Formats: sequence, structure tokens, C-alpha cells
Amino acid sequence: MKPRVAIVAPGAMGSAIGHRLDSHGFQVLTSLEGRSDASVARARRCGMHHRTDVELAHADIFLSIVPPAEAIGLARRFAPLFKEHGRAPVYVDCNAVNPRTAREIAALVLDSGAAFVDGGIIGGPPRPGTPGPALYCSGPAAPAVTALRDGGVRVRVLSDDLSAASALKMSYAGITKGLVALASTMMLGASRNGTAQALYEELAESQPHLLKHFARTVPDMFGKAYRWVAEMEEIAAFLAPDEHGQRFFESAARLYERLARDDGAGRAEIEALSAFLAQQARPAPEASTLKPEP
Amino acid sequence: MKPRVAIVAPGAMGSAIGHRLDSHGFQVLTSLEGRSDASVARARRCGMHHRTDVELAHADIFLSIVPPAEAIGLARRFAPLFKEHGRAPVYVDCNAVNPRTAREIAALVLDSGAAFVDGGIIGGPPRPGTPGPALYCSGPAAPAVTALRDGGVRVRVLSDDLSAASALKMSYAGITKGLVALASTMMLGASRNGTAQALYEELAESQPHLLKHFARTVPDMFGKAYRWVAEMEEIAAFLAPDEHGQRFFESAARLYERLARDDGAGRAEIEALSAFLAQQARPAPEASTLKPEP
Repeated sequence: MKPRVAIVAPGAMGSAIGHRLDSHGFQVLTSLEGRSDASVARARRCGMHHRTDVELAHADIFLSIVPPAEAIGLARRFAPLFKEHGRAPVYVDCNAVNPRTAREIAALVLDSGAAFVDGGIIGGPPRPGTPGPALYCSGPAAPAVTALRDGGVRVRVLSDDLSAASALKMSYAGITKGLVALASTMMLGASRNGTAQALYEELAESQPHLLKHFARTVPDMFGKAYRWVAEMEEIAAFLAPDEHGQRFFESAARLYERLARDDGAGRAEIEALSAFLAQQARPAPEASTLKPEP
Repeated sequence: MKPRVAIVAPGAMGSAIGHRLDSHGFQVLTSLEGRSDASVARARRCGMHHRTDVELAHADIFLSIVPPAEAIGLARRFAPLFKEHGRAPVYVDCNAVNPRTAREIAALVLDSGAAFVDGGIIGGPPRPGTPGPALYCSGPAAPAVTALRDGGVRVRVLSDDLSAASALKMSYAGITKGLVALASTMMLGASRNGTAQALYEELAESQPHLLKHFARTVPDMFGKAYRWVAEMEEIAAFLAPDEHGQRFFESAARLYERLARDDGAGRAEIEALSAFLAQQARPAPEASTLKPEP
């Protein structure tokens, strides 16, 4: 029999995973309490059914998919219900939290009698026709989550470690989202100094793979910058005791905070970044005059 | 007639550019005072001839190619000679300095009666059979430097601006060397947390262009980290008034300082980075068991 899966909350990622499981015949439960009309409509379209918290606590697999700052709160909300009702799910914390936070959640969940799995989602929400993101899992109970593979979810078991999946998520997101912060910073610096075109052309010539990467990932950040602030702070905490790395990501958090404000009002920086990436490279000016080597 | 070119100092970049000019029949002068025996031998192999400072001040084109912290000092050393002897070269500051420093050097040089060109070298030292780096030039006198194209040097004129070439160099190096700092930070973080292999495999699968970039650029940094410290500080200064960007690069400067110390003693971090990049990716574990979409 297919496991019953609870997904809280039905955000962009949660509802897309719910949809995929539903399309493979899984029963997918969620909580629609306090969600906007648009969010409720989306969850329904994705085949997710509203249940009370007590009912959700009886699911077989419970996926916590929330912003990093809400991960502990969600575990605190459900742990007493797991304890009280005796029948507890495998609780998978899928959030972009640092390993210390993952272990704190593990302690709360294990104390309630539920099984804990540390999870980390790498990749965007699954869309029809694509394999979708990988759900990395670690901890002694992680093999139980492989039941979701029948639902089209790419579950990958890492190890018995109670925070390995979070550590992987932090190091991967540090590279991809840190690079967006770095590229944005330098493209804005070049634009302020009147050298945007020359930088674009030099990148097109000597680092075309990076320019292509920026053209895809920087605009994708605009609407998400506000969500990335807390994730950058988690990555900073993950990097302890490397204080330089920590400051690096604390700066990235502040940058995303600034871009999120800019996205809401003015958009001067968002527009400068868009204009940078909308440029075209011209042929190298010296190509026709350079002497070949003798 | 070909211009006589002075290149100070005959370091890795300066002597390689000297060699290229010499191989095209240019007369290339330098100062070997105070240089190591190995450095003197290299300069001679590259066809560079020792001259006194007074004689160097009479060259047609003077290329300043020194570590960023020495750029102003070099201008101070030669400006009085340009002034005193009446016949002054086109002085090209080719160094990785921020635009404010470039303008400070411009003021010193212009006051001496010499012409000033802001330069920025993008790419590694020219090697036989390769086009070599681009020498970006800006300022009203920049077109004079195109005479070096006959010497196989890819000179690119940007604009009349007295610091545009430095601004371009800062924004480009900020991306390439900032990315090496970011990647090193995260690869070390993953290694400390036991998730190096999983990160390597995930990158190989979903960001192969970045992993390939790291495999080339991170090891290339090991022997140069000590030189990059001052360049990161120049980039931080370049980014004013973006305080988050500034902190980003101040952290990168401290990281390179730490890696340079590590390179000199212990090499624990250098070896962790090498071990990270020496890994092999295995096939995805869930590939055989994942259900296709219905």
C-alpha cells in the first residue's frame, strides 16, 4: 500500500511535490488553515486535501517544507501531537537549515516518538515532463523515504548522519546562491562605473559559461531575494568556525535584503541587472589589426 | 619605427609580455636592480635589457606591471625623472588597482609631463601559441598604446575615461577571483561536514560547467593566494558605496591570506581542496528505481 503523505506547507515547492505524488496515485494531505485563497486554489489543483493537524499527525510520511525560519516552529507544532496520539509518521525536515538547526529539530521529533529524517531539496519545484529536484535524505530512518520514488520523487539516501542532508544543501546552495550574490554585486559595480558593456563583452569572450549561468540564475533571483535572506544566514551559521566564510554570507544576506526592498520599490538595481544581461557582445575590436606571432 | 618599451617589473606577467614584444622585434627595457638571480635570468631569457631608471624614463611606452600595493610607489619613483629630463613616455598603469588609485597615479604622472593611460590586463601571461591576455586601455592617450599590437599584444581601447580600464579589471577579477574564494569556502565547509562526495556528485550532475570551472581555477589559485589579498582589497574599495559588496571582498582577502599561510605551512586546507576536486562522480543511486511519470 502506498504511504499517506502529509506536506506542510503547500507553498510553491510543497504543492509541486504534492502534485507529482498525487499524479502517481498517492494520497497527499496538507493544512490549508490561514492560507490565501490563491494558495488554497493551487493546493486543490495539485490534488492536496486539507486535514486537521491531528489527522496530519497520522500520516505515514510527513514532509516539512517551509521557509528556514519556520522549520523549528513546525516541528514544535506537531511534536506534541505525535506524542499524544501514539501513531507517528516519519518526519522529514526538507528545509534549507544548517546542520545545528536540523539536529535541534531531530531532538524535538525523536522525543515525540516519531522517526526523524534530515532532508534537503536540490533543484526547483518539479514540473511535468522534468525529473524534478532531488530530495536528499539522511539519518537511520532515511530508507523509509525511498517509498516516495514510486511517486516520481528522486529520493537519495546519503548516510545515517542526522544532519548530512542539511550540510549538503547548505554547501550546494552556498555555491549557487552565493554566486548569484557575487555576480549581482560585480555587475552593479561595473554599471555604476560605466564599464558594463566592456565587462559583458569580456565575459562573453573569456567566460561564456559563467555569463550564460548568470543570464539564467540572476533574473530567477529577483522575485525570490526576500526568501534567500534567511537561507544566506543559515549558510553563514553552517560555515562556523570559518569566520571569513560566515561574513561572506552575512553580506550576501544583506544584499538580498536590499534587492528584495528594491524589487518592491524603485527597482533601480533590478533594472540595472536586467539591462546588464540584455546587452549584446560585439566582435573584438583588435581582431583585424593584431599581428600573428612570427 | 617601433616604440621602445620599458616594463617594470619583470615579474611573471611583465617578462612574458616582454618576451612577446621582443619576439616581434621590439626593444624591451627593464630594471633588474634588486631582483633575484632567477628573476634576472628569466628577464634575460625573455630578451629584456637592464637600464637605469633615467634611461627607462626615456622609453616611448612605459608599462607599470607590479603588485597592486606597489603601483603608486612606482609612479612616485619615475614621475620626478619624467619631469627632470623633459622627454617622457606614455605611462601605462597596467595594475589591478581600484579606479580611485588609478586617478591618483594619473595625477602624479600627468603632473610630471608624461602622458597617462589607465590599463588593465585580463587573462594570464602570454604563452607561445596563444593569443595572450587583453590589455585594456583608457584615457585620452590610450590610442598610442595600440602600437603594441604590432608586438602581438591584444591592446583594446575602451574610452577617454582615466580609470575605465581599472574599473573593468576590478569588476572582472571580482567575478573570477571572488568565485574562487566562494567555491573554496563551500568546498571546505562541505569537507568539514563530511559531505564532500555528495556535493561533488550533485555539482557534476546539475552544475557541470561550474565544477569544471572550479577544477581549473581553484588549484591555479594555490600558489597565488598571497598576491590576491591586495587585489581583493582593491575590489572592496572599488565597490564603495556598496558596503555589503565591500565586506564580501574584505572577507575574500582574509580567506586568501589564510590560504597563503596554509600553503606555506601545513597545507591542511590546500589538501582538502585538492582532495575535493580529485573525486569521481558515481552514477545517481536512484536512477534504476525511479518510476517514470504516468
